[in-house]
Amino acid sequence: MRILILGGDGYLGWATSMHFARRGHEVHAVDNYLRRRAHQEAGTDSLTPIGASLPARAGAFREVTGLEIGVTEGDLTDWELTQRVFREFAPEAIVHYGEMPSAPYSMIDRDHAVFTQSNNVVNTLNVLFAMAEITPEAHLVKLGTMGEYGTPDIDIEEGYIEIRHNGRSATLPFPKVPGSMYHLSKVHDSHNVHFACRIWGLRATDLNQGVVYGIQTEETALDERLLTRFDYDEVFGTALNRFCLQAVIGHPLTAYGKGGQTRGYLNIVDTLQCVELAVTNPASAGEFRVFNQFTEQFSIVELAELVQKAGAEVGLDVRVEHVENPRVELEEHYYNARHTKLLDLGLKPRLLSETLIESIFETIQRYRDRVILDHIDPKTRWRGVREHTTP
Amino acid sequence: MRILILGGDGYLGWATSMHFARRGHEVHAVDNYLRRRAHQEAGTDSLTPIGASLPARAGAFREVTGLEIGVTEGDLTDWELTQRVFREFAPEAIVHYGEMPSAPYSMIDRDHAVFTQSNNVVNTLNVLFAMAEITPEAHLVKLGTMGEYGTPDIDIEEGYIEIRHNGRSATLPFPKVPGSMYHLSKVHDSHNVHFACRIWGLRATDLNQGVVYGIQTEETALDERLLTRFDYDEVFGTALNRFCLQAVIGHPLTAYGKGGQTRGYLNIVDTLQCVELAVTNPASAGEFRVFNQFTEQFSIVELAELVQKAGAEVGLDVRVEHVENPRVELEEHYYNARHTKLLDLGLKPRLLSETLIESIFETIQRYRDRVILDHIDPKTRWRGVREHTTP
Repeated sequence: MRILILGGDGYLGWATSMHFARRGHEVHAVDNYLRRRAHQEAGTDSLTPIGASLPARAGAFREVTGLEIGVTEGDLTDWELTQRVFREFAPEAIVHYGEMPSAPYSMIDRDHAVFTQSNNVVNTLNVLFAMAEITPEAHLVKLGTMGEYGTPDIDIEEGYIEIRHNGRSATLPFPKVPGSMYHLSKVHDSHNVHFACRIWGLRATDLNQGVVYGIQTEETALDERLLTRFDYDEVFGTALNRFCLQAVIGHPLTAYGKGGQTRGYLNIVDTLQCVELAVTNPASAGEFRVFNQFTEQFSIVELAELVQKAGAEVGLDVRVEHVENPRVELEEHYYNARHTKLLDLGLKPRLLSETLIESIFETIQRYRDRVILDHIDPKTRWRGVREHTTP
Repeated sequence: MRILILGGDGYLGWATSMHFARRGHEVHAVDNYLRRRAHQEAGTDSLTPIGASLPARAGAFREVTGLEIGVTEGDLTDWELTQRVFREFAPEAIVHYGEMPSAPYSMIDRDHAVFTQSNNVVNTLNVLFAMAEITPEAHLVKLGTMGEYGTPDIDIEEGYIEIRHNGRSATLPFPKVPGSMYHLSKVHDSHNVHFACRIWGLRATDLNQGVVYGIQTEETALDERLLTRFDYDEVFGTALNRFCLQAVIGHPLTAYGKGGQTRGYLNIVDTLQCVELAVTNPASAGEFRVFNQFTEQFSIVELAELVQKAGAEVGLDVRVEHVENPRVELEEHYYNARHTKLLDLGLKPRLLSETLIESIFETIQRYRDRVILDHIDPKTRWRGVREHTTP
């Protein structure tokens, strides 16, 4: 199958590109290095060394495996470029990771909020128009996030909910209460993609993904030059990956507030499995399908305890520090999200176990000299805009 | 009260500016003439002559009433300009009409879709950041549209719905299934404004307005130079106003498809009343309040019959033509939307009556020489993007 990977230089995009190429698909990756530039501006970097450019990474992949990954270095908010990629590659499936993915980044100030929403909304609109005009039968697999839902006081369903009201009933999109300017951009995208399916008959799968953890996949383990990026800083790092790094370098685990915040989590190898299941079982024409993509729920305190315990077994003295929460979010809440549709398609979860955490420790240990200590503690505060107005 | 009117040159924005100024408020109107430029590009125009510029209109208003309306000619997507306006005027209330308001315009092609969403989302984000940083106690009255909801098979509530699910219950935003790229932009805005209230404690009222009809208000009737604009073309005109004009000039009423499409409607003088009720009864700090702003529901066929009957009484032979529907929408559907919150605040509706329709006929008759016939029949098709790909 011809599979276009948007955001192919990223943590998941690069791993996904290699995964599909090794399973015999024709893969083309697009990236504008937005994430690399944001790291450069902030003075941060991936823990793992990831090579000079996407063509360099594809070159290393060819040397190691003999397989090709096509590359376009360019920005999907550029309509001419988007059209050219769709015309030349004629994708049958599009896996869309190509967005600014950070909640803290989007909350730095007005410029970052507006950039995040404009970038994500416009490039997704471009993808939808390119599909409608050039490849109307292709299947869009769009990465969303579980964070779109927020933490409602009822069970979270997969995209839609049947509402009974005043003696009538309707199945409607599950209401969303997202927690950052970034999460809002994904909600905007979901509405836009749904519309394109309803009005133009496009086919799409929205993957509302949980927090991804892990550092190695089958392909990254083949050669050091095939490693994917690993972020641990306050802007791009996510909970479990950050805790593992903090444990290795002897930094207290930074639990925000009470630590009762509960979310869905999954291993990076399960992300690859889920995306492959979505691509190989496409949505129907006109269908906007939503899967909740995670395998287990944990609270922050539970995660911290797991890392502490795994650390103890390898001789690490891991402390947990409850730091002031920079976000505005409930720290104790009901959370129960359905996630059966990918299991129904055949997902075999690799659940979190201490063994796995230890294997993450090992890879981090190998690159611990690259850790930039300045950017581990949280700095970006959700109420920042209001606060710096106070005289 | 210091009231900032964003989009103060428009159909409702100009009428609202005069309304508040005559009731003793300090009014400042901002507009970048987006609507005028879109008309120029399309070769269309307002039926009513509206003067050369917003300062010219404010000058005429001063001559007639002795009252001031402050004016800024500028674009709210320009962050510097937005900040300057908020710093200099320090509004206590902001009435935000300042968006690209047309569903057909947003469906012309990719450029118009992306422009509509970028313009509306970015200028509303700028307003929210300016409020948070400069006037955190001010009250935003944001114009949304009933079209955000679509036509669900259950009763539409005012912004929120209590959902009982698996033995639990939560009050969540009413799920929205909007019908155009423009309507989507308003849904994006609603999510962004809700977030700003939740996270920064801003106060906002989202007015999900029905279709507005009518041509005269207390102020526009004072002097011909104070008229507000009146659009009847396929892009900016709306159902009842278009039907009235079609009746006067002897064009068949253009009912799209079966004509069972049912929506909420209100008189322009009730828009002024509703906005005034919202402004003078502000939301609380942190509150995102949603009102459904319309007074009566009609189907297209019902409206056409009303116009036909009113026409007959003044000697007009009005025919109704069911033209192919350029939109993708249900033409027969359940529709029952709650609209009690503004009534609870004291709204006294001026319901649609034949007398009123006849008074609209009279004003149209006065300017019938200005009608541009080319742009009455619908041209912009919702499936256009898909269609022009077919070989």
